[in-house]
Amino acid sequence: MNNIYIIGVGLIGGSMALDMKSMDANIDIFGIDTNSDHLDEALALQIIDHKATYEDLHNADLVILSIPVDKAVSELPKVLDAISDSTLVIDVGSTKLPVCKTVESHNRRRNFLATHPIAGTEFSGPKAAIQGLFQKKTNIICEVEKTTFKLQEKALKLFSDLGMRIRYMNPEAHDKHIAYVSHLSHISSFMLGKTVIEKEKNERDIFDMAGSGFESTVRLAKSSPAMWTPIFKQNRANVIETLEEYINNLKQFKSLMEADDFDEIYNEMKNTNHIKEILKGIA
Amino acid sequence: MNNIYIIGVGLIGGSMALDMKSMDANIDIFGIDTNSDHLDEALALQIIDHKATYEDLHNADLVILSIPVDKAVSELPKVLDAISDSTLVIDVGSTKLPVCKTVESHNRRRNFLATHPIAGTEFSGPKAAIQGLFQKKTNIICEVEKTTFKLQEKALKLFSDLGMRIRYMNPEAHDKHIAYVSHLSHISSFMLGKTVIEKEKNERDIFDMAGSGFESTVRLAKSSPAMWTPIFKQNRANVIETLEEYINNLKQFKSLMEADDFDEIYNEMKNTNHIKEILKGIA
Repeated sequence: MNNIYIIGVGLIGGSMALDMKSMDANIDIFGIDTNSDHLDEALALQIIDHKATYEDLHNADLVILSIPVDKAVSELPKVLDAISDSTLVIDVGSTKLPVCKTVESHNRRRNFLATHPIAGTEFSGPKAAIQGLFQKKTNIICEVEKTTFKLQEKALKLFSDLGMRIRYMNPEAHDKHIAYVSHLSHISSFMLGKTVIEKEKNERDIFDMAGSGFESTVRLAKSSPAMWTPIFKQNRANVIETLEEYINNLKQFKSLMEADDFDEIYNEMKNTNHIKEILKGIA
Repeated sequence: MNNIYIIGVGLIGGSMALDMKSMDANIDIFGIDTNSDHLDEALALQIIDHKATYEDLHNADLVILSIPVDKAVSELPKVLDAISDSTLVIDVGSTKLPVCKTVESHNRRRNFLATHPIAGTEFSGPKAAIQGLFQKKTNIICEVEKTTFKLQEKALKLFSDLGMRIRYMNPEAHDKHIAYVSHLSHISSFMLGKTVIEKEKNERDIFDMAGSGFESTVRLAKSSPAMWTPIFKQNRANVIETLEEYINNLKQFKSLMEADDFDEIYNEMKNTNHIKEILKGIA
């Protein structure tokens, strides 16, 4: 795979490009982006070698579609229309059911592999791209059986080169579980940030009192609304369900405090400490 | 100050001991703890040089009271009873009003300085103690005017040696604001951990899907219930108020999703992105 096209030269697409270039000097990276500043930045940062357009996609060995999930749903069919028969197209979005649905009847469905690399930071854009982002991270692949075997092999070789381990899952299960272990975290963090900013907006000194614990819990509130709004929209039902359960748990905690039942407060925390063992192994 | 007594040889007391020993070889560190395993560990780890009891406190130049905040309230008067006229006693607890109240009429009130170093990790016990924990961290001092000037000076010298910057605040303001920037973070994290564990308890594989974002938001759910239960109890009214506001913000976010008002969801996140600038400078 020598001609790699990155559609959306941001954190994920850009980081993949950096790793691929460092592994193979013969690779040519082409960038496509509606944001021309991002394309210029990506060129200047040597993340991409050339700017390109959809008309060039027939030359692609690999296309990485790394754009917000609403755009992915509308662009993916056009990308498949533009490629050659031997091109592999992967997406890297945080929801998987809508993108799989949008191409289920496409005559090039077998050129596409739906993936979700569980990797990233709270930053976005080409400047956020970093080498080694995918080392030891999980990549979730959906509907693998719908992709041509030869292109599956190419994709697995790439993910292995990037240092990722693979998990297979159907898109419904992906979207349901990812709501708990990723989407809910973002909302809890955004609303924590909102609550504190609202209260303390006139007292900037108060943030001197904030330590690393606060920083850790609100880190995700720096995330891009342009990326996250369509994720919440596409995964609406699952996210609402997780939010409902989270709010109920918070209300119950508050009720225990109001009832002065601190023995039970202790137990709630003790039982959740179990997360220590669960988290072992997450980077 | 050569004879330093640490009551409660855990993360905070232990880390202070390590820094003080590294700065001055002549310092003798004495450990007092109801947990004899912790005392043995602290000796083995060379955090303390000797075990001690309250009867020895009359020899102390400095006593650091680093025990859960409910214990601090009951122990501090006994500590003040046992020291000499020239001993400085500091506490390091996460609530400040109850500890200040408990000694407001004590005849050795002027030997005591109420402090809250905003430093720590989610771990506890002597093994959690680390050198340099306080570098560039904030130490909040309450009711400074109630401490003898000479002992204030000694305390400020110590905090400066540890690398801390000082903020002065009355205990009521401390407890109110710290509920937002610290206590609420812990509850949001514990309840996030609970929500996900409850849902996924039979599907351990799901945690393979969790990335660094989830890890960051649930990190505080590893914290010690023995430390945090009394903090929530002592700061009950302020914590309930913050929880109420947090729950209302989450409910509003959920309502916006149910109403498919994703423009407003975008705005909510965009406005909270402002936390980026606020967090600059927090370690």
